[in-house]
Amino acid sequence: MEKISEAFSFGGKQFVFSHASIVNDCKMTLAIFTPPQVKNPPVLWYLSGLTCSHLNVMEKGEYRKKAAELGMVIICPDTSPRGDQVPDEKDNWQFGSGAGFYLDATQQPYDKNYNMYSYLNDELPKLVENNFDFDMSRQSIFGHSMGGHGAIIMALRNPEKYKSCSAFAPIVEPSTASWSSEAFKKYIGLDKDNWQMYDSVALIKNGYRFPEILVDQGEADSFLEDGLRPWLLEDACRKAGIKLNLRMQPNYDHSYFFISTFMTDHLNWHRDRI
Amino acid sequence: MEKISEAFSFGGKQFVFSHASIVNDCKMTLAIFTPPQVKNPPVLWYLSGLTCSHLNVMEKGEYRKKAAELGMVIICPDTSPRGDQVPDEKDNWQFGSGAGFYLDATQQPYDKNYNMYSYLNDELPKLVENNFDFDMSRQSIFGHSMGGHGAIIMALRNPEKYKSCSAFAPIVEPSTASWSSEAFKKYIGLDKDNWQMYDSVALIKNGYRFPEILVDQGEADSFLEDGLRPWLLEDACRKAGIKLNLRMQPNYDHSYFFISTFMTDHLNWHRDRI
Repeated sequence: MEKISEAFSFGGKQFVFSHASIVNDCKMTLAIFTPPQVKNPPVLWYLSGLTCSHLNVMEKGEYRKKAAELGMVIICPDTSPRGDQVPDEKDNWQFGSGAGFYLDATQQPYDKNYNMYSYLNDELPKLVENNFDFDMSRQSIFGHSMGGHGAIIMALRNPEKYKSCSAFAPIVEPSTASWSSEAFKKYIGLDKDNWQMYDSVALIKNGYRFPEILVDQGEADSFLEDGLRPWLLEDACRKAGIKLNLRMQPNYDHSYFFISTFMTDHLNWHRDRI
Repeated sequence: MEKISEAFSFGGKQFVFSHASIVNDCKMTLAIFTPPQVKNPPVLWYLSGLTCSHLNVMEKGEYRKKAAELGMVIICPDTSPRGDQVPDEKDNWQFGSGAGFYLDATQQPYDKNYNMYSYLNDELPKLVENNFDFDMSRQSIFGHSMGGHGAIIMALRNPEKYKSCSAFAPIVEPSTASWSSEAFKKYIGLDKDNWQMYDSVALIKNGYRFPEILVDQGEADSFLEDGLRPWLLEDACRKAGIKLNLRMQPNYDHSYFFISTFMTDHLNWHRDRI
């Protein structure tokens, strides 16, 4: 882990690190906030949305004040592999750089680099464990939009690993949403059976469970009807007996003005469960 | 005033507007946050630092939560005129675009556009008054670095207008600091007598008064010794009987990680006095 920057904030420290990733075969960057005066703090992972890097939530998420108060580490990874040697579609914001969709690609030429699921599930937690005195027996996860999708599939597939899960405006059924299904085709091929392990609603239908999930969704979100569709998650959770706390927030859009507004609620949600 | 964007946040609204400025002879952009459910809210002006626009504090300042709670409008103007027809030095971050220094230029070719003092003192408040139901009898001002300089000179020169003044890491004596004196030469010429109206320490020495000022200054600020030098303000205030609450903050740097940490304290300071 190479330290890129370090700044005091709210009594804690906001770091940016980079490191060589084996599973993504490139250099990856991430932000880590450490709270003040806490030994072995628990870890809350935040997964970001399309077009974002580790920077967006670090600059606009307004998580430090509450995380410092609650004594939680916040880790904000990047959303995809990056670099000159990483295949990309520069003009397509829904695929490639900034759009890793938290899956492991199986299709050439993407399978060499686009392995964000394994990166976040295996490689990065191990690296963090080896480099910091965090309490890795207490981890939780949340995220926004594509990162909300990432957080929920991670929790459903690893219910013993994460103490809690929440999301801001998650993509709940990426396999049938236009802004994600095209990426799924290129990353993991045309056989839609293979898509189901990266689709929250499909995972729940297939028996994957997580005890409870908090979701905030803005009613003025321009992606609501077409890409996000929280009612699909609501329906799947109801049938599966998963406690979904879906809060529709009048007037709020898809931006960090929305996320920052409800950030404190999410941190409290996780702190009560981690 | 043309509305560029609008987003709900913390129950209030974060707007960006643009308008034609007469005194700066260009289009100017600014951010305005309006709190929820307050009639005739008071107005707190935030002036930004070198290289910034209205965006930096809007994205990283973390002022909305507390401003919504306290019922205060936050107005964040740009730091200089901008546009193809505005003379600039593209590679110089201490002069031209992003470096208006809150003064009225007298030297050609800058005098046509670089009139941020008159813009903030006269034109913009009048425009705001004509377009919004804010209580313009209750205004306060604060800012960061170059904007801290702007806030303090504004308050010293208009003690009847502003109810309170504070600053994060202000440039307190720009006429003798290397990163500002070169700009002063180009904007207002070689006669240093003319610089004194835009220099907090000089204004105080010349009899200008404001009852009390809050200043937070990071001790790990890389500009502390050379450009900021809060002890010059401390000395001038002590001799003048101005109550300066100078808080040296160990470990903090010059960034928005520092500003956001103490933002709530500053909003409370202003709310108690506005």
